[in-house]
Amino acid sequence: MDILHRVGVKSASLDEVYDALTTLEGLRGWWTTDTTGDPEVDGVIAFRFGPPGGFDMKVRELHPAKHVLWEVVDGPEEWIGTTVSFDLKQEDDFTIILFKHEGWRDPVEFMYHCSTKWASFLLSLKQLVETGTGSPTPNDVQISNWH
Amino acid sequence: MDILHRVGVKSASLDEVYDALTTLEGLRGWWTTDTTGDPEVDGVIAFRFGPPGGFDMKVRELHPAKHVLWEVVDGPEEWIGTTVSFDLKQEDDFTIILFKHEGWRDPVEFMYHCSTKWASFLLSLKQLVETGTGSPTPNDVQISNWH
Repeated sequence: MDILHRVGVKSASLDEVYDALTTLEGLRGWWTTDTTGDPEVDGVIAFRFGPPGGFDMKVRELHPAKHVLWEVVDGPEEWIGTTVSFDLKQEDDFTIILFKHEGWRDPVEFMYHCSTKWASFLLSLKQLVETGTGSPTPNDVQISNWH
Repeated sequence: MDILHRVGVKSASLDEVYDALTTLEGLRGWWTTDTTGDPEVDGVIAFRFGPPGGFDMKVRELHPAKHVLWEVVDGPEEWIGTTVSFDLKQEDDFTIILFKHEGWRDPVEFMYHCSTKWASFLLSLKQLVETGTGSPTPNDVQISNWH
């Protein structure tokens, strides 16, 4: 049970996207402005989204300009133990991101929501690198009554 | 191997969303303007996207204001035999759409792309019902080098 997405960012180099995935400043620019912690391997990054809470991600693997792997160590029960990965490659003048949120135990309604929300945040990442401004929480695209 | 999404449309009634999924005029407003065919049960709807081609969907089930099920009978090889369903319910002042594209044989890169693209089209459907104007092809959001 995985959530999969593919987005292409118009970018001269893979490094720009890699930086947006591996620095606090980058992550704050497309996912949530309330991002703190240690983005190095074995560090834990805390992503917060206001009262509903957030996610703590342990950084498992970092291969510069190529691969990022996080493990969810705290957050909603359905997320704990799942992994989130980003694989990067160059095609034409695009940096392609292959995204995978892996290890969901059941296709609960929350998984449907997270799938759509991830798509929206990945488009925010694209927008950040292409234009300099993304749409991170609290300015994220509202997709439903679950925000 | 399924693609799942959840979107909530601010709408006074389930019928508005159901109509957008079951009439040619509705479908042309959020997925592709080049939509023709027979949207009744056992009819085939042809969705076209310019030179890359398109999809022929056989309408398998229609439960007014509740459930729509299509089977892909022609299109890209990976899509043939898969099914696409929309389940509707009311929550607060939202019509919730639970979307499922079911039966992918392999998690090929095209599936990653289609997952993100479906999210984008479902947000176009939300926009259509909420504002009267969606972003169907050829005015759809470009997510990558694969459009």
